[in-house]
Amino acid sequence: MDGIDRAGFRKLLADRLPDDVVELDPDIVDAYSRDESEFLEPGRPWALIRPRTTQEVATAVSVCAEFGVHVVPRGAGSGVAGGAVAGDGSVVICLMRMNRVLEIDTRNLLAVVEPGVLNADLCEAVRAHGLWYPPDPASREICSIGGNVATNAGGLCCVKYGVTREYVLGLEVVLADGSVVELGRRTVKGVAGYDLTALFVGSEGTLGIVTRVTVRLRPQPPAAVTLTAFFDSLRAAGEAISAISTRTTPSMLELMDRTTIRAVDDWKRMDLDTGAAALVLAQSDVGGESGAVQLDLMAGAARDAGATYVATTDDPDEGEQLLAARRLAYPSLDRLGTATMGDLCVPLGAVAEAVSAIEDRARRHGVVVGTFGHAGDGNLHPTIVFDPGAPESVRAAHAAYDAMSEAALELGGTVTGEHGIGLLKRGHLAREVGADVLDLHSRVKDALDPAGILNPGKVFGRP
Amino acid sequence: MDGIDRAGFRKLLADRLPDDVVELDPDIVDAYSRDESEFLEPGRPWALIRPRTTQEVATAVSVCAEFGVHVVPRGAGSGVAGGAVAGDGSVVICLMRMNRVLEIDTRNLLAVVEPGVLNADLCEAVRAHGLWYPPDPASREICSIGGNVATNAGGLCCVKYGVTREYVLGLEVVLADGSVVELGRRTVKGVAGYDLTALFVGSEGTLGIVTRVTVRLRPQPPAAVTLTAFFDSLRAAGEAISAISTRTTPSMLELMDRTTIRAVDDWKRMDLDTGAAALVLAQSDVGGESGAVQLDLMAGAARDAGATYVATTDDPDEGEQLLAARRLAYPSLDRLGTATMGDLCVPLGAVAEAVSAIEDRARRHGVVVGTFGHAGDGNLHPTIVFDPGAPESVRAAHAAYDAMSEAALELGGTVTGEHGIGLLKRGHLAREVGADVLDLHSRVKDALDPAGILNPGKVFGRP
Repeated sequence: MDGIDRAGFRKLLADRLPDDVVELDPDIVDAYSRDESEFLEPGRPWALIRPRTTQEVATAVSVCAEFGVHVVPRGAGSGVAGGAVAGDGSVVICLMRMNRVLEIDTRNLLAVVEPGVLNADLCEAVRAHGLWYPPDPASREICSIGGNVATNAGGLCCVKYGVTREYVLGLEVVLADGSVVELGRRTVKGVAGYDLTALFVGSEGTLGIVTRVTVRLRPQPPAAVTLTAFFDSLRAAGEAISAISTRTTPSMLELMDRTTIRAVDDWKRMDLDTGAAALVLAQSDVGGESGAVQLDLMAGAARDAGATYVATTDDPDEGEQLLAARRLAYPSLDRLGTATMGDLCVPLGAVAEAVSAIEDRARRHGVVVGTFGHAGDGNLHPTIVFDPGAPESVRAAHAAYDAMSEAALELGGTVTGEHGIGLLKRGHLAREVGADVLDLHSRVKDALDPAGILNPGKVFGRP
Repeated sequence: MDGIDRAGFRKLLADRLPDDVVELDPDIVDAYSRDESEFLEPGRPWALIRPRTTQEVATAVSVCAEFGVHVVPRGAGSGVAGGAVAGDGSVVICLMRMNRVLEIDTRNLLAVVEPGVLNADLCEAVRAHGLWYPPDPASREICSIGGNVATNAGGLCCVKYGVTREYVLGLEVVLADGSVVELGRRTVKGVAGYDLTALFVGSEGTLGIVTRVTVRLRPQPPAAVTLTAFFDSLRAAGEAISAISTRTTPSMLELMDRTTIRAVDDWKRMDLDTGAAALVLAQSDVGGESGAVQLDLMAGAARDAGATYVATTDDPDEGEQLLAARRLAYPSLDRLGTATMGDLCVPLGAVAEAVSAIEDRARRHGVVVGTFGHAGDGNLHPTIVFDPGAPESVRAAHAAYDAMSEAALELGGTVTGEHGIGLLKRGHLAREVGADVLDLHSRVKDALDPAGILNPGKVFGRP
């Protein structure tokens, strides 16, 4: 960012945008320079833009393009891979003021929203019409739809209903030159031209800034029935997960390991079996008698795999109580120190091996790791507890984090199932996809952002 | 293709590839220059390549790249949009010898196949393991997985289970320079880098040649229950479709219009209500008692919308009999002359309006059109009957085809739901997405195929 006329740049920003949209106070700007990731040191951005309209986003990007200033798009800042960590001399564009649900189309089962709408707020808005937006990150109360699109976010129900990409029908995007395009459609299906919508979903702000999202909705499903089962070995839990996946259609299939079970029970005294190696939680939402049949099949699969304890309920409130342990997994680990959440995904049959490998890497690096996650998708969140004030602890945590990503690759998996690469996993991405596919990334990036001003260094490339 | 050393090119092909892989006999080559599309005139390709291995595909492409010869990838040739129609002086690479199912991984619920495997053969192969590959184009007995990937093919069950893109986890692709890359993964979820797999799915051979496909499988669902309902107006049928979509989770939701009903009944005497304006067919595969509940809800929705006749069955064989009319829709129209199938998709609530608009355009252009299709996805196949020997009839059919695409756009829809743009709809694509998004297509294409040798002129650009 050398040689840029900083004063001229700031003046042009101020000239072209309303006063309250451009923030130059370094203290405020700095507060928007980081997200929930660990191990990364943000730079000092030059400005924070808080647009209310697509046009203001476009104006800000075009001014940045004119001066060659880097642009860091930002949603709610809840990302854990550093996708919104800003570099020196960049401009952060925070989309959280663009938070309107513009349209809920009950006839065509879709909604049009601005990127700053929180996931939970969208769900709430459409629920009033008997509709449902399925992708449900655990952070749904605090994460934005724009961020969900940027990372192609997943969640608990994705095992049955698919991830964000499956629900994004269309996007309005501000490109690197400040122009605005409409991608996609309002129809369920469509193959007119390249699937640029899918290319932009998960591109972590490196190809354009999403300013409007058309999402597909579904009718609300019936109330779910719930199973919990404890196992005295990871192998047995893995077998149960495989059997439940193949014999039934779970709408949720989650796993917690021993460390996580103990962290939750130590905190909340929930009478969990703290001697167990793993806890499996599953739901089915087919409803009615078939739901009961699914629950029986799930319980049978758990018992066949050697479950030491099985509980089931068709009562939604009791189901929520059974799920409480899972919802407390991250905060229970976080209170033991500072927790940083990994995000590995392995082929379905390798879940037990993956948890064992994670435990092994934790031992080798002398760190505490609790693993939980969306086992029905092979998606695990090994969560490392460390002391950010102790350099030795930070080093060990970071090394363990990297080693676990390596382990996922060795098992035929990926280094990120739903959180994204951001800044934190750029090296892991290169290891996963190889130089040739990384080159394809560069060619696509260069085609859409030739000057490289959009979130540079995220996902791949030099920061 | 001026100025290319044709003899030198053919010699290099012959030197680098086995004899039986390179076909130069013009009569044989010409037979591979067209697909099932109408209104298009193929050119005269210089050669046909029938590779058995990825390496042979790569070699062929690299020789073509060296000489600047155009490459037309080809699957089973069942496409209806001209995606495999070859130009003068091009080389057709037919992938149908690469027809092995390489792996069925029951533990991880995936299969790895070569592109020349027929859709039905893949289904058959995995059924032996209790597994299922959902995307089910009506042409499944004759269409290849490679072609399905090229067009992002849909089908009947996609209303519940999604289209090809949702099932393609990874691809091996030969790029425009003859290099081979592996895209995607073997995990259900994954967000490591750009979704290049999704970019290649539906790109109709313009970005690379798919030589291997990793597909996601599902457990086989329970037997379906089936509803058929006749309506005396399109509006009523449209209401039934909306109500069934919002009150239940159909695994199939199809529509046939009056012309199609009559064409089927005239041929097969199935005691269909030939006075009806529309026939709606729906299935649910949730199984058991819930299936019965779904069927009741579907029947109630049909009656509420004013169905003149409703039949339901939970017997799979009877269900197949009820579906027979739908399966005969295209051949019944085709026997009235030559039939060419359109492929429009409109927002869910606009199905009835779309069928009305199609009937209107048919009247205006004086052609016979029968419309049927995947109403639950808003995806309709208006099928025009014409006489290919009568220039006037061909002109009217082509004009009606174009007018129906315009009508879909006016209703907020797309000009292709599952068949692709090919050569036939290039003008329609430009109308649908606009110059700015077309420019993005060019930039992506130029980034991945700078010399423009891969299936030139398909989807967009000059042929």
